[in-house]
Amino acid sequence: MPILVQKYGGSSVKDGDRLKAVARKIAEHKAKGFDLVVVVSAMGKTTDQLIQLAHSVSAKPSSREMDMLLSTGEQTSIALLSMALADLGIPARSFTGWQAGIQTEAYHQAARIQTIDPRRIHAALSQGEVVIVAGFQGVSIDGEITTLGRGGSDTTAVALAIALGAERCDIYTDVPGVFTTDPRLVPEARLLPEVTYDEMLELAHLGAKVLHPRSVELAKRFQLPLRVLSSYEDRGGTMIVSTLKDTPGAAGMPGSLETGRVVTGVARDQGIARFTLSNLPNRIHILSEVFNLLEAAHINVDIIIQSLRPEETTEIAFTVQENDALRVLEVFNTSAHPDFQSVRIMYETSLDKVSIVGSGMVTHPGVAAEMFRLLTQAGIEIKMVSTSEIKVSVVVEAKDSERAVNILHEGFHLDRLEALHRVENINDI
Amino acid sequence: MPILVQKYGGSSVKDGDRLKAVARKIAEHKAKGFDLVVVVSAMGKTTDQLIQLAHSVSAKPSSREMDMLLSTGEQTSIALLSMALADLGIPARSFTGWQAGIQTEAYHQAARIQTIDPRRIHAALSQGEVVIVAGFQGVSIDGEITTLGRGGSDTTAVALAIALGAERCDIYTDVPGVFTTDPRLVPEARLLPEVTYDEMLELAHLGAKVLHPRSVELAKRFQLPLRVLSSYEDRGGTMIVSTLKDTPGAAGMPGSLETGRVVTGVARDQGIARFTLSNLPNRIHILSEVFNLLEAAHINVDIIIQSLRPEETTEIAFTVQENDALRVLEVFNTSAHPDFQSVRIMYETSLDKVSIVGSGMVTHPGVAAEMFRLLTQAGIEIKMVSTSEIKVSVVVEAKDSERAVNILHEGFHLDRLEALHRVENINDI
Repeated sequence: MPILVQKYGGSSVKDGDRLKAVARKIAEHKAKGFDLVVVVSAMGKTTDQLIQLAHSVSAKPSSREMDMLLSTGEQTSIALLSMALADLGIPARSFTGWQAGIQTEAYHQAARIQTIDPRRIHAALSQGEVVIVAGFQGVSIDGEITTLGRGGSDTTAVALAIALGAERCDIYTDVPGVFTTDPRLVPEARLLPEVTYDEMLELAHLGAKVLHPRSVELAKRFQLPLRVLSSYEDRGGTMIVSTLKDTPGAAGMPGSLETGRVVTGVARDQGIARFTLSNLPNRIHILSEVFNLLEAAHINVDIIIQSLRPEETTEIAFTVQENDALRVLEVFNTSAHPDFQSVRIMYETSLDKVSIVGSGMVTHPGVAAEMFRLLTQAGIEIKMVSTSEIKVSVVVEAKDSERAVNILHEGFHLDRLEALHRVENINDI
Repeated sequence: MPILVQKYGGSSVKDGDRLKAVARKIAEHKAKGFDLVVVVSAMGKTTDQLIQLAHSVSAKPSSREMDMLLSTGEQTSIALLSMALADLGIPARSFTGWQAGIQTEAYHQAARIQTIDPRRIHAALSQGEVVIVAGFQGVSIDGEITTLGRGGSDTTAVALAIALGAERCDIYTDVPGVFTTDPRLVPEARLLPEVTYDEMLELAHLGAKVLHPRSVELAKRFQLPLRVLSSYEDRGGTMIVSTLKDTPGAAGMPGSLETGRVVTGVARDQGIARFTLSNLPNRIHILSEVFNLLEAAHINVDIIIQSLRPEETTEIAFTVQENDALRVLEVFNTSAHPDFQSVRIMYETSLDKVSIVGSGMVTHPGVAAEMFRLLTQAGIEIKMVSTSEIKVSVVVEAKDSERAVNILHEGFHLDRLEALHRVENINDI
């Protein structure tokens, strides 16, 4: 039987009633003849409550013990979901990360999956059981419980789908799919029936919190069909694919050009901090030294700018998530490396990043210029810029970001995209 | 370094403040030069809340998934306690049941420990870490999470103490030790500085909820010094030993006789159901058939009475915990065995068991007669009787049990026991 992997996020299983609704949804798919593997997150705000609990006993809880603590959240969900399924007469079996054979790096709170040994899952499926797997967690080779970092349940689902050779991975969440931008910011935002892996990757990285970026990268690498849809309503959601489908009557033309989608979406990433390190020795290796240090501390760096100048010292600017800011300071203040002994560190917080994304952008020069023009016209100061083939990002003050999103959404005519006509087809998948 | 095993119950770790208090207590013992292994239960009412949650999604949750669910309670505690210790500068490492090498039968919700592989614990101790182990849980040979049944954390602690060759196992709880009876029922109840394994075993089985009986049995078999004491105050608690210490000036005489302790305590076990099976074929194997069936369903039977009569049919009466009553009915109603096809089942609930316990009883005949006289004088109906060398139990109506306990406590002069004088010695251990 074909295997379908489904993932339900925390809001989809936030209480007993929602768990029972999810169980009914699983039962429907089971009846359609799929072997089902279901990945679940911790219920509702459980993870946040556990973090609070940790901070009530320790100023700085260790990563190892945080993983021990947080992994209980998903374990609770899987047990309850299995019970709810059994109550509907559907045999189900729950597995923690270690039981599901999910082996990760020996790193806590942000471990990457190394291998999956799917034997126990296959054994359960072959007995006709629905398999429920705890998202977000795994086990290291030493038998230590690890977690994949927040949002890691998406990655668990995609990794399992690949390891099991699943037909597709469906990510159920609390929104109907991927929108041209956050509908809470822009009421005219439209649901996108299809986006490419690359677009989704940019959108995911850029704060469209629908999917964890690692899961999209993984799906792209293995060309796994991935779908995002609501666990609350029966709209078709958003399919994430390699290339957009051609519209009828335009055979052979890439969909992104044909449908006129140059810009697919506008994303906002809140809580950015910008660091400027100055008085660094102007040596060829200085950039990699800086980022090796940050990498070793597992701090994700986003936009990076190095000034090129013929002086003895140089300057490097970069952005990180605001909640990593203190750790960045710690990294450079405690480094024994001679290059950082006289470094000057400046930083600015309360910044947001606003980005436009679209796989059609690569063939349409001038999109970035249009973006800067729209923002500058509105008197919004652009503090940093970064571009890729399919996106342009700007860092602006947090107070300006909502306005920037609205201006760009309207300026690139996203409110007029004729995108919804494909939903019926996707619903049939 | 000598190893000390400590166990803290749910009320001792019910919130962040209590967890921090426990961490300070552990730090004190660590400073005394012990290698410490600490077993923790789930916080406060966590287990009850998880059971409620299970019943909110399923009318009859499976045992396997209940174990998956309930084992999260202790996992939460061990992580938090390790964090609290680290916050005091004491390196600590938590282990779930499977990480601690606690292998049990492949039976859910009431598994027995088969073996303990202490390698990970020894490795952590040798690095100077305090080891925190999740009580109540283990793992089967197939990698299934199991639990030992409620109160099983005591058993975890004793089993670990034996496997590790610990000096002693200290069970911290919310009462100062073992009393002559429940102080909530009898204000004159006295703390017992010492009881024998056998006395404790009877008291534990009889509803003195200080220690889980399995843990006492295990400690007795391996002659492990066991102590029960309060995590809230610094009284010496109750030592559980093979034979009571001789009092000074009475060398060679068994302590229980010397101190005049014929009856050590009065216990009450609430929520008893009495079954009478009649119209059973009067064959020699009928008793074992009945109890094989109950054993297979893991239903604990307490008092058993078989009528001896020269007829074709016979009658067997027994008591079980009231919450097993429905399962008893199910066992006999679904049995295909020909002997049970025409069985008549009668049962009575709302019964309590009241018992007197004392290792001196064996050398003092007439204690049972005195007990019956005291109860009958007070107009309390005795519905069933059971005796062992060191205890006499009677089943009475629940409405009479509190009065029965008071009458017996006074009638056997337990309020006048000069027991507390030994506390100082025990405090020095």
